[in-house]
Amino acid sequence: MNGAQRLMRTLVDSGVDVCFMNPGTSEMQFVAALDDVPDMTSILGLFEGVVTGAADGYGRMAQRPAATLLHLGPGLGNGMANLHNARRARTPVVNVVGDHATYHRRYDPPLTSDIESLARPVSGWYRACGSPDAVATDTAEAVVAAWGPPGVVATLVVPADVTWLEAGEAVAVPARRPPKAVAAETVDQVAKALRSGEPAVVRIGGGATGSRGLVAASRVAEINGAKLLCETFPARLARGAGLPNVERLGYLAEFAQAQLAGTRHLVLVDALAPVSFFAYPDLPGYLVPDGCQVHVLAAAGAGEDAPEALEALADALGAPADGAVRQAAGRPDRPTGALTADAVSHAIGALLPEGAVVSDEANTSSIFIPGATAGAPAHDWLCLTGGAIGQGMPVATGAAVACPGRRVLSLEADGSAMYTLQALWTQARQGLDVTTVIFNNASYAILEMELNRVGAGAPGPRAHDMLDLTRPDIDFAALSRGMGVPATRATTAEEFTEQLERSLAEEGPSLVEAVLSR
Amino acid sequence: MNGAQRLMRTLVDSGVDVCFMNPGTSEMQFVAALDDVPDMTSILGLFEGVVTGAADGYGRMAQRPAATLLHLGPGLGNGMANLHNARRARTPVVNVVGDHATYHRRYDPPLTSDIESLARPVSGWYRACGSPDAVATDTAEAVVAAWGPPGVVATLVVPADVTWLEAGEAVAVPARRPPKAVAAETVDQVAKALRSGEPAVVRIGGGATGSRGLVAASRVAEINGAKLLCETFPARLARGAGLPNVERLGYLAEFAQAQLAGTRHLVLVDALAPVSFFAYPDLPGYLVPDGCQVHVLAAAGAGEDAPEALEALADALGAPADGAVRQAAGRPDRPTGALTADAVSHAIGALLPEGAVVSDEANTSSIFIPGATAGAPAHDWLCLTGGAIGQGMPVATGAAVACPGRRVLSLEADGSAMYTLQALWTQARQGLDVTTVIFNNASYAILEMELNRVGAGAPGPRAHDMLDLTRPDIDFAALSRGMGVPATRATTAEEFTEQLERSLAEEGPSLVEAVLSR
Repeated sequence: MNGAQRLMRTLVDSGVDVCFMNPGTSEMQFVAALDDVPDMTSILGLFEGVVTGAADGYGRMAQRPAATLLHLGPGLGNGMANLHNARRARTPVVNVVGDHATYHRRYDPPLTSDIESLARPVSGWYRACGSPDAVATDTAEAVVAAWGPPGVVATLVVPADVTWLEAGEAVAVPARRPPKAVAAETVDQVAKALRSGEPAVVRIGGGATGSRGLVAASRVAEINGAKLLCETFPARLARGAGLPNVERLGYLAEFAQAQLAGTRHLVLVDALAPVSFFAYPDLPGYLVPDGCQVHVLAAAGAGEDAPEALEALADALGAPADGAVRQAAGRPDRPTGALTADAVSHAIGALLPEGAVVSDEANTSSIFIPGATAGAPAHDWLCLTGGAIGQGMPVATGAAVACPGRRVLSLEADGSAMYTLQALWTQARQGLDVTTVIFNNASYAILEMELNRVGAGAPGPRAHDMLDLTRPDIDFAALSRGMGVPATRATTAEEFTEQLERSLAEEGPSLVEAVLSR
Repeated sequence: MNGAQRLMRTLVDSGVDVCFMNPGTSEMQFVAALDDVPDMTSILGLFEGVVTGAADGYGRMAQRPAATLLHLGPGLGNGMANLHNARRARTPVVNVVGDHATYHRRYDPPLTSDIESLARPVSGWYRACGSPDAVATDTAEAVVAAWGPPGVVATLVVPADVTWLEAGEAVAVPARRPPKAVAAETVDQVAKALRSGEPAVVRIGGGATGSRGLVAASRVAEINGAKLLCETFPARLARGAGLPNVERLGYLAEFAQAQLAGTRHLVLVDALAPVSFFAYPDLPGYLVPDGCQVHVLAAAGAGEDAPEALEALADALGAPADGAVRQAAGRPDRPTGALTADAVSHAIGALLPEGAVVSDEANTSSIFIPGATAGAPAHDWLCLTGGAIGQGMPVATGAAVACPGRRVLSLEADGSAMYTLQALWTQARQGLDVTTVIFNNASYAILEMELNRVGAGAPGPRAHDMLDLTRPDIDFAALSRGMGVPATRATTAEEFTEQLERSLAEEGPSLVEAVLSR
């Protein structure tokens, strides 16, 4: 068994049996190994940003890592932005990067670069595999590291000669780390602070935004009158009828400040203290109000058992087991008239299927969607965690691989869609049940807003030109069909609703371009 | 004048007046500054790989740097692969990366990452601008560093607060460095080696592949009987009727070995010693034959005046001033019949316009093209220098910006085209005279070849599946039209030739998809 076969075999034995890939020459042994390791599902992406984003989406939904396979430093570079998002989502990813043969790098052939320097900023774990004997151990340890908790991007660099030489024996797969229990004293201290009766906010993120964490957090909020707020861009938020409906902290600092105003106790549950996404000339970046005490129930990204801690807190506060407030079922009417972002939101709320997975990169167009979908049947919501656009369609792709039988709804802003549109091709090849909605407002609308907010005075036509996506207009339906995904265009609310309904009912991927009223 | 305005103004004053960009919130002051610095031409790319690749193409043709404008670490990541290629091409690029405000980074907001670690591997010069007072100096020094020689990617990271605060005064633009003269003794030593009469190869690259270097190198070869070989993937090679026609070292190690067999003296002129692109299990990586002496006339990437050194060498050898052998004019016939890669090559040879700039990323499909175009009117040839595919269409875009009035021919393999296809939109917006030819063979054909070469045994169907670009077939004409670039599909040699002819004559961009006989 050569090194490539050993690596693939070890991944499968360790519970990692999906590999998203865009291999090159230095990874050909891995490609050849696929026929020897039939339990490994391999999925081709036409660009590495698709590969890494799909691994992120897969990891968020499967709750276990997928592997990637990337081609040296440049392949890693192409996948970097979505690894950044995965890092911020704390998604487990086993990030396999091929490299030149160990003895070949010294000649500095064209594809050589400093892979470690590129990889470190996104990797919670990094190793360059030094020999065929080490492949099994390195791979098994990469899986354990990736899995966490917390989930991290574990980057394993594998030189070509390591892949083709005879590998060492299999190793026992190391045990996974359990989540760390939060100390009883920590729970008591937070309970004491909340019992003060002073205005309090419980901010949840990370592992606390699944149904168990939400139910416990809602019990805490209800018994105590605390306000429950979720991270602005949660990696995976359980939502819909029957689940507690949690407000997200606003993206705009002004809005977030209003949400937090008057808070005297801020309880952080696998979430950082709230800060603004960007700095602005005359606005604060750190959003904790003056005089507010910050209490950490579960440290962000520390692998602590946040749902358990929330349950202990609820119990300590004497909250009844059924004390959570659960969202009532309810859907908006089907919209009519002009095709606005609001109309699209209502159509989504009217039609979202039970168990849907929503990959949300609609940016400015998505502001009405949480309200319109709050009472829809239970579903999962995946956000753009690291701010690096081009995540949504790959994440939708990986989520669909992880969740056969569940409909994935990929909500995409036009500007973001143009980053990693190649994801559509993979959706077509794999026959994934993904409905993509493109919000075509023909601009980087969020930047038009930001341009006004950074105090840049009155921007002129040359500035606006850089944020404008017309000249030429983009025909997303044509782009989609060019990659084998059926597509329609809608210009009225009725058209959109009908096309969305059809797409949601259809097997395999399809795309609806919503040409928004301008 | 704020920091952003000062930076833009300093770029223009330093001779950098084109900026390819994909800005985000932290770069909005730069966008606003465009209306205050009208001499700066700003060009939007819908993905950062387009931005950095266009800066590379621009720099190669304009022989001066363009600027980029990228959004924090993830924007840099998306542009990384083409910065890698630019580094390998030694193209001057002023790579401006926006960052969070200096006081905001400590809060670790979502888009924060270690920009320096990401940037160093591709940057010949790196600086994070620390204050508004330093903007002018830092910018001017970045331009000088980028310009070289050798040209490098000079990365300047600019925090948002530096862009919006009042900036320091303008500074005098530092003088550009002249190329270093090669020492007379070096020339004499090389001349002495060549005079030995033993089999010799002169390998040229970098700055030696323009018409002046080629003419001098041809004089050397003719007087001495040395073989003239060019780098495998030159950044910019002057070619065509009236210029010396230089053979490129083969991509395949076996072929390169044959070209170099028996060589006793290898003279390197702004080129590294030949090594294979990848390592293979039973082939050498270092391609200099045993017993061959290596002589460095001009060190690779050292900013030495390679054409001058070649002229001095030719003179030292007593070569007559008109001793270069120049390629005779001649074109192949227009092809007929099946649409093979060979037929496409003949059509290109038959029609290539005078002064064309060819961006060549046709990979396996391009092997017949050099022969078919050798006698075409004089033109420039731009190669994939760093092996990171997704370069060709962005480079074509930047070359067209640099060379109004010259036709750019962008030769693209299907797999590579899917990396940075968004370049078409920029070509449409700018009305650039670019003809794109897609070689659609529905596979990563080079990897099919490599799969057989890495000693992976007989690969099975699951391996081949990862190299296959069918299921679904990609309709490049549809993709092109979706981004506003007119497109046609050809399935016979006659159709292709006619469509290519029409495209070459048309103002603005258009695309011809060559559906190759399978």
